[in-house]
Amino acid sequence: MRMTELTDGGCRVIVVAVDKGEDAVEVVNEVAARSDVRGARVTAVGGFRRAEVGYFDRDARDYLRIPVAEQVEVLSLLGDVAESQGRPALHVHAVLGRRDGSTVGGHLLRGEVWPTLEVIISEVGGSLVKRVDPETGLALLTATGRP
Amino acid sequence: MRMTELTDGGCRVIVVAVDKGEDAVEVVNEVAARSDVRGARVTAVGGFRRAEVGYFDRDARDYLRIPVAEQVEVLSLLGDVAESQGRPALHVHAVLGRRDGSTVGGHLLRGEVWPTLEVIISEVGGSLVKRVDPETGLALLTATGRP
Amino acid sequence: MRMTELTDGGCRVIVVAVDKGEDAVEVVNEVAARSDVRGARVTAVGGFRRAEVGYFDRDARDYLRIPVAEQVEVLSLLGDVAESQGRPALHVHAVLGRRDGSTVGGHLLRGEVWPTLEVIISEVGGSLVKRVDPETGLALLTATGRP
Repeated sequence: MRMTELTDGGCRVIVVAVDKGEDAVEVVNEVAARSDVRGARVTAVGGFRRAEVGYFDRDARDYLRIPVAEQVEVLSLLGDVAESQGRPALHVHAVLGRRDGSTVGGHLLRGEVWPTLEVIISEVGGSLVKRVDPETGLALLTATGRP
Repeated sequence: MRMTELTDGGCRVIVVAVDKGEDAVEVVNEVAARSDVRGARVTAVGGFRRAEVGYFDRDARDYLRIPVAEQVEVLSLLGDVAESQGRPALHVHAVLGRRDGSTVGGHLLRGEVWPTLEVIISEVGGSLVKRVDPETGLALLTATGRP
Repeated sequence: MRMTELTDGGCRVIVVAVDKGEDAVEVVNEVAARSDVRGARVTAVGGFRRAEVGYFDRDARDYLRIPVAEQVEVLSLLGDVAESQGRPALHVHAVLGRRDGSTVGGHLLRGEVWPTLEVIISEVGGSLVKRVDPETGLALLTATGRP
């Protein structure tokens, strides 16, 4: 993983190149923790050699795991970084493209990068706070921003 | 709906948490009007318990309505806010993920949120103006920016 | 094509309306070159009357070309502009939506716009440099940023 921290006038923009074989979720979480990102938009494109996405099952109150056991294009990786229980927490969804152009997607659980993943993390100008929602057990954005 | 207005050096960034049962299109339009957003990028991830997307039919000069009658992940919600006939107008497209990871998408007409939709509206530094295109009847971006 | 250059406090935001019949990839590359964009996030929504997307074949070390021979919604166009061999280079992936809401996507090779494509190019605050990766022959982001 290689990263660079730039500044867009007021806010930081962190650009990350995730390398072959690294896990996208782990790397972006690690970068967010190391740089203490508390509120940001995250986007990325690239490729995975295998991945796992999730679909939130309302009854089970948990993610169904959908394995993607082939090389795919990362057509869209989109989401945010907020603060959950005092730490930066990444929440990203992904749309992946297969060899024939068909797509599969979900909440990104794991994505083994190949050959690259180009990630842009742009701060929104404050902390975004998440709190656990009792109905689902998920940490949801409160939209309480602290500049 | 809960929202917070932050500032990214020069421009505003508005973060919105759309709540269970609310319509995503209505809420974001309401936020854009209330905060007088005239030019912005919009992204979001989350979930819908049902939705309706559109495909623009060239001959009918109107959107075919595609109902999505199940809980889906909002894999990508992407678009912009511009000014159309003197008012903020939202234009967003969505890619939605089903239980098996398959996807469906279109111009977002309605999306009933469950359990959350995390929206980031980032101003672009000026007004973006739309005008009605006589051929299609659609309001299209003119890319006339007013700082 | 019509464009406007705005400023987001520190960085430029370039908004482009690509017109009917124009090729999205050509136009955005031309805008990036003309405005000397060396590091940016790119997003867009709109429609294509035909397109071609690619899937990177590991063995052939080249893109398989996937033709899309129908009017589609551009549900998501996402990527970046970096500097490759001294010039701005666009790297975008697309998710396209068909008449029935089904999707197809890949690395965007060509997209003939109809009726519009609304593109937002937001600089990240520095140059992003790409270098050719010997294993794949692709120019990959190094995440060396120069403010």
